Amino acid sequence: MRILLTVEYFGKNYAGWQRQKNATSVQQVLEEKLSLILQSPIVLSASGRTDSGVHALGQKAHFDYEGNFPVGKMAFAVNTTLPEDIRVLSAIKVSDDFHAQYSAKRKTYVYKMYVSRTLHPLKNYHFARIPYDKVDFEKMERACEDLIGTHDFSGFSSTGSGIKTTVRTIYSATLRKDGEDITLEITGNGFLYNMVRIIAGTLAYIGAGLLPEDSVKTVLDTKNRKLAGKTFPPQGLYLKEVFYEDENMVSEER
Amino acid sequence: MRILLTVEYFGKNYAGWQRQKNATSVQQVLEEKLSLILQSPIVLSASGRTDSGVHALGQKAHFDYEGNFPVGKMAFAVNTTLPEDIRVLSAIKVSDDFHAQYSAKRKTYVYKMYVSRTLHPLKNYHFARIPYDKVDFEKMERACEDLIGTHDFSGFSSTGSGIKTTVRTIYSATLRKDGEDITLEITGNGFLYNMVRIIAGTLAYIGAGLLPEDSVKTVLDTKNRKLAGKTFPPQGLYLKEVFYEDENMVSEER
Repeated sequence: MRILLTVEYFGKNYAGWQRQKNATSVQQVLEEKLSLILQSPIVLSASGRTDSGVHALGQKAHFDYEGNFPVGKMAFAVNTTLPEDIRVLSAIKVSDDFHAQYSAKRKTYVYKMYVSRTLHPLKNYHFARIPYDKVDFEKMERACEDLIGTHDFSGFSSTGSGIKTTVRTIYSATLRKDGEDITLEITGNGFLYNMVRIIAGTLAYIGAGLLPEDSVKTVLDTKNRKLAGKTFPPQGLYLKEVFYEDENMVSEER
Repeated sequence: MRILLTVEYFGKNYAGWQRQKNATSVQQVLEEKLSLILQSPIVLSASGRTDSGVHALGQKAHFDYEGNFPVGKMAFAVNTTLPEDIRVLSAIKVSDDFHAQYSAKRKTYVYKMYVSRTLHPLKNYHFARIPYDKVDFEKMERACEDLIGTHDFSGFSSTGSGIKTTVRTIYSATLRKDGEDITLEITGNGFLYNMVRIIAGTLAYIGAGLLPEDSVKTVLDTKNRKLAGKTFPPQGLYLKEVFYEDENMVSEER
């Protein structure tokens, strides 16, 4: 049977989701603990990688399992053995043709920033800092709207991922302001390598006046990475939610 | 001349504010870096201690200094040498009879909690968890009102502080709810050892139905620590602000 996990993690102490040779990954820790609890070697397939230091509020990963451990007790059982920066929020049975990555229709990422000349120690692990006294938030909001739609996002991508197409569809992209905090929430059918972090950096640069306010359009048109802002740091980025077609899910057993 | 600092810190990696023999404190790190920058041995007097693991958004500390380093550049200069979990938000000149502790009129603490059966890794360093599915927030709000006024708070205190009086005045105490998050904000003329953490624990226990809803009154009346909830953990506690009489301040030089 196939089980789907929803996983939250604080990314600071991990070299990202995916197993690495010389560094600890979330996947490795979770597979080890699950294998121990379920008395069977578990291999996880996630909705996608998250990079070193990136957080997840709702990463999804599936695995196949033929033992007798009740699905409804898996999350609780494995949580008793996991370090406090990883938690399984739920485990449900899904159909055998469900795939955490290939069945995914949409993903939502959140990027948290704050605007301050001074670093704030209490935000240091969960936000990126825009090191200015203030930004033009309205300019950032207008630029954000230019992201929506189907575009070639290669100008908002770091090289080296070797994927087939760089065309993606962004369904929504919104900015919220709360005092000095600015939160980007972006939903699309997929994201290129470093795409959200480069978008966050570009919006911040536009807000700070370091880039023209039509820079998002320019980068989409020219596909020129050099015309975008810098890649913002991982600690501001959260994989918030992965969406699937409901028909793939068999969710009564929790 | 006397200088007053406003200091923010993330408390996790420190044995509290005050210098300790065998552990690193915020005071020690800050004194070392200031002494280096100002080329003079600096001794800080804070508004009060914060315990191991407790955070500060606006700790206040003063020191005396006779050198030529401009007051307006001290915060920036020392911040370039401090670890990222401590930052000086401002440095101002104050009158020589100003004292960070004895001139303080009021302090505001914040205590952040969330209600969840599952630990949330992304809140683990900044919140305490109430390990239930839900709490009765209205009961907690009513109990919170019982704190306001002048009372003997010895039932809300851990022993061993050896202070003269256990009577304190609470000017305001409010709870705010945002999804699963519950934030206590409390302002008083002073706080006993562990007082806010025991108050937070008592309100949480009342919300969870582990204590009667008039428990705050009962603890104030009986001064019996055993009738209060447990001391909640340090990572939920923030020293938010210290208030002084304006006449003590000479604040033009920033």
